[in-house]
Amino acid sequence: MKVELINPFLEATVSVIKTMAFVDIQAGQPFIKKGTVSRGDISGVVGMTGETEGSMSLTFSQECICHIVSNMFGERISDITEEVKDAVGELTNMISGDARRRLEANGIRLAGAIPSVICGPGHEIRHVTKEPIISIPFVTGKGDFTIEICVK
Amino acid sequence: MKVELINPFLEATVSVIKTMAFVDIQAGQPFIKKGTVSRGDISGVVGMTGETEGSMSLTFSQECICHIVSNMFGERISDITEEVKDAVGELTNMISGDARRRLEANGIRLAGAIPSVICGPGHEIRHVTKEPIISIPFVTGKGDFTIEICVK
Repeated sequence: MKVELINPFLEATVSVIKTMAFVDIQAGQPFIKKGTVSRGDISGVVGMTGETEGSMSLTFSQECICHIVSNMFGERISDITEEVKDAVGELTNMISGDARRRLEANGIRLAGAIPSVICGPGHEIRHVTKEPIISIPFVTGKGDFTIEICVK
Repeated sequence: MKVELINPFLEATVSVIKTMAFVDIQAGQPFIKKGTVSRGDISGVVGMTGETEGSMSLTFSQECICHIVSNMFGERISDITEEVKDAVGELTNMISGDARRRLEANGIRLAGAIPSVICGPGHEIRHVTKEPIISIPFVTGKGDFTIEICVK
């Protein structure tokens, strides 16, 4: 149960979403879950290796990602278009990179793999690990999203 | 365009599916694609880092994975159950591990991250990279599946 992983990912998410989309988000209470799954309409996933092996996922409802990306682009977007998929890839890369820089400042060095973006209404993501998964819910005012982190 | 990556993943896939599920599969012609996506009903994704960064995905139709898992378990399975999702995680781990061992024998060392399993009818996966993606289609006799590999 690597609680020292929580803050770097939480702070990176708040910082990247605020910088890129000018959206103030509120982090809910992080919790440790086991054996359950995330459901959403679009997700970004990125593997990490180094001192340990891990994975991070970001899972958005359509309402939530359209709100964030509308703010990023300064125009109203209501569907999961190609641009929205690209934006989720970019957000995944930036949040993972920012979190890994914060971890490195704490002496934990991880390298990021090539991220993937998954689309499909109500898809589910599960991390293939027996370890507990750290889940951080975020509230944007227009739909919620979740970030999950697991490490070996 | 890392063509030396193709054979280790192709051979690992054939070997793992044959060993685990006693299913003879035929590899189609590998091809390099750019900018397109994979669609399926269940996928396994795993990131890789080391000398380079990469990602591998396995994407199955429901018919195909049910055929493979029915053979693995020796009982008829027609839905994407919890056991099927676990089996896709295990196959993703085994194929990625076997391929990385074959790559290491060729002097290319990569570490595997924690894999993810994605479920959802007709979901799509895209790798967040500007590099070409190697796609290898496989035919099982009862539905097809695809493995994709990308590296920086």
